[in-house]
Amino acid sequence: MTMDSPEVREAGALDADELRDAWAALDADERLEGFRLLPTSEGEQFLRTLDLHDEVALLTALSPPERQLWMRQLPPDDAADVVQQAPEDERDAWLRLLDEPTRREVSALLAYAEDDAGGLMSPRYVRLRPDMSVDEAIAYLRRAARERVETIYYIYVLDAEQRLLGVVSFRELFAAPPDKRVRDVMRTDVTTMPPDLDQEAVANLFAESNLMAIPVVDGLGRIQGIVTVDDVVDVVREEATEDIQKIGGTEALDAPYLDVSLREMVRKRAGWLAVLFVGELLTASAMNRFEDEIARAVVLAIFIPLIISSGGNSGSQASTLVIRAMAVGEIALRDWWRVFRRELAVGLALGSILGVIGLLRVVLWPFGREAYGDHILLVGVTVACSVLGIVLWGALCGAMLPFLLRRLRLDPASASAPFVATLVDVTGIVLYFSVASFFLAGALL
Amino acid sequence: MTMDSPEVREAGALDADELRDAWAALDADERLEGFRLLPTSEGEQFLRTLDLHDEVALLTALSPPERQLWMRQLPPDDAADVVQQAPEDERDAWLRLLDEPTRREVSALLAYAEDDAGGLMSPRYVRLRPDMSVDEAIAYLRRAARERVETIYYIYVLDAEQRLLGVVSFRELFAAPPDKRVRDVMRTDVTTMPPDLDQEAVANLFAESNLMAIPVVDGLGRIQGIVTVDDVVDVVREEATEDIQKIGGTEALDAPYLDVSLREMVRKRAGWLAVLFVGELLTASAMNRFEDEIARAVVLAIFIPLIISSGGNSGSQASTLVIRAMAVGEIALRDWWRVFRRELAVGLALGSILGVIGLLRVVLWPFGREAYGDHILLVGVTVACSVLGIVLWGALCGAMLPFLLRRLRLDPASASAPFVATLVDVTGIVLYFSVASFFLAGALL
Repeated sequence: MTMDSPEVREAGALDADELRDAWAALDADERLEGFRLLPTSEGEQFLRTLDLHDEVALLTALSPPERQLWMRQLPPDDAADVVQQAPEDERDAWLRLLDEPTRREVSALLAYAEDDAGGLMSPRYVRLRPDMSVDEAIAYLRRAARERVETIYYIYVLDAEQRLLGVVSFRELFAAPPDKRVRDVMRTDVTTMPPDLDQEAVANLFAESNLMAIPVVDGLGRIQGIVTVDDVVDVVREEATEDIQKIGGTEALDAPYLDVSLREMVRKRAGWLAVLFVGELLTASAMNRFEDEIARAVVLAIFIPLIISSGGNSGSQASTLVIRAMAVGEIALRDWWRVFRRELAVGLALGSILGVIGLLRVVLWPFGREAYGDHILLVGVTVACSVLGIVLWGALCGAMLPFLLRRLRLDPASASAPFVATLVDVTGIVLYFSVASFFLAGALL
Repeated sequence: MTMDSPEVREAGALDADELRDAWAALDADERLEGFRLLPTSEGEQFLRTLDLHDEVALLTALSPPERQLWMRQLPPDDAADVVQQAPEDERDAWLRLLDEPTRREVSALLAYAEDDAGGLMSPRYVRLRPDMSVDEAIAYLRRAARERVETIYYIYVLDAEQRLLGVVSFRELFAAPPDKRVRDVMRTDVTTMPPDLDQEAVANLFAESNLMAIPVVDGLGRIQGIVTVDDVVDVVREEATEDIQKIGGTEALDAPYLDVSLREMVRKRAGWLAVLFVGELLTASAMNRFEDEIARAVVLAIFIPLIISSGGNSGSQASTLVIRAMAVGEIALRDWWRVFRRELAVGLALGSILGVIGLLRVVLWPFGREAYGDHILLVGVTVACSVLGIVLWGALCGAMLPFLLRRLRLDPASASAPFVATLVDVTGIVLYFSVASFFLAGALL
């Protein structure tokens, strides 16, 4: 689709699906133009399908009256997300775009951190009193269905102090005898969550419970809002993206890859890369200590990349497995000892396999025997033992580092593959030359 | 909770939440015992909260009559998943546990690949004819609500050939005037998907459309079933877990970390680790070519780990960013040239930053001047240029490899951090010694 072709120039000549498909390839001006070409009825739905970053960029690009029109279409939790993205001093201006009741709802939501349950919830849920009959309740819901509530499919039963007494799905209510009381058909063992539950834990709760909506309840048992599963799909994707980017050794981008400016992209990547580079400079210091050994037996230098990268690879396996298992709630802090024992066993097995491959490679090497004669077997044993040690060490470091970070209340995903590799590289060099001194002293060294 | 304490030994003395919390720490026998202690009413809900791997293990451990009881509680899409997990020759035995109508539904579902839309869908959706009145439709739904349909909240309007004409949400129906026809309140621009759509694409469609359910429609426009958003949460988590594990250089575990047997864990990790090790052996061959240079200038060897790891780190950043952007549908194959240009610019900037740090480190090194005298500046320039080159090369390799894999119809996530690092290591060594020959010929070399 080209935006410039004259046949799509009149408003309403473009539909939301076409724009959606073309979106990624358009620049900011074309996106604005494309959005204005949508029929008004499709605008709101289209806005809701954008990710937050694109949504805010588009709203900002619109004229003030347009911006007010579209902001007023958004449900309060989405509007709160938009306002939260704005710089501190512009938030009031964004809030003023809303009508009075919505502004109050949005202001209340802004008190919660964006990535907690409180920041995900909608205040527009359906509430009933326990003593209504099923028939009265259904008649009431028929009116509620026309209003802008998030869902009518879960109904929350509250007492006069807004305390949550129970929940009934619309379907259960619908299937119940009309003259029963709501109190008699509601379930009282309700899965709830506190407003400050981290969104990763929110996602895990949804995955475990298979519910379509979960109420957010404060310390006094009062309901604050509900989180619906469709918002959780976005959370799960976002959290996984963040973890993957961190595991790759980048700061989280917080925006689609192609939308990040070059300057921002360099900034987000240079920080970690420079830290890792400075860390890796320690390998040069470590190597410097062994300069004499290298001068006497250049063959030792030849295997350094092989040995340190084996440690890095086994460490990166272990750290990513542990980071992911923590993120989805499979393992907790207290499991560190079980994980340690597993990685000890796995690391020994993996190290032995690679050690044997390494030994064979050195011993069967065509150039080896003429250059190093009888010492070639000793070099092979040195390589094999070093590989075994470093693979084991890598697995243990990689597996324990996420636990350490979580213990320090940092993000375990920061134990990225490059970070673990760098950590293991320096120790790998010291280990390798220590093993070499042991086996080769008096022979090559 | 301890399973052995006498006070929880009677059936029904344990509730689903308690068991859920203790689950990860229990062994197979304790899990079986715990499940049998649940009140019968909580068993089905509990089973549905388990991941597929644990669910199958538990069902297998039960006695045949118990297994039949619980299999018959499962909705057909869940039952199909369970049957699909069983070895080929045991599937019939599992199918025979079901009642006749469910068995037919499950057999139909088994024709689809487990990780396609067809494998995720439920055949139990609510269907209406277009000429029913809204009031008739609601009365009909009131009966359907008592049956085992997946959701009554989206209603699909079909013609006599099962072709999908439109969709109406329960809420819209409920809010519509009672004497209107279904035909007049339904929406006809329905988002649908084909049965063979990959589950990653299914997840992206849900994330973009914000729908709670999407119908699966065959080439003739006939509805085959519906996929609901709660199943998609699990898909998104599963797919992200697989990608993260592959990025870390492991085969996908397909089960929780602590549940994988040690033998299986070694097998899933040893494969890639051995491939990478053999690849990394090429570094030894590359180094061997430059043995004379190392013997003449040991200082060169000292910076090898620093230089190759810089390339690996920048490559791992680029590959993880591109892999994730592809997985969530931000970039497609046709974007390779835009990505190439971006990484060219970013790689040059990052390489320059690290190159300058490297240059300063060599030149300001306390031991440098005495050992290498006037040549130290040349060594510094060699290191700086090599770092610049290798960081750029790493970024380009890391970014292009996922495109190449996707083009070959392989999983882009296989362009793991360790894989890219290994690829870059070998070329890094050749690059470094080539740069060194250029600057140091006649000086140190």
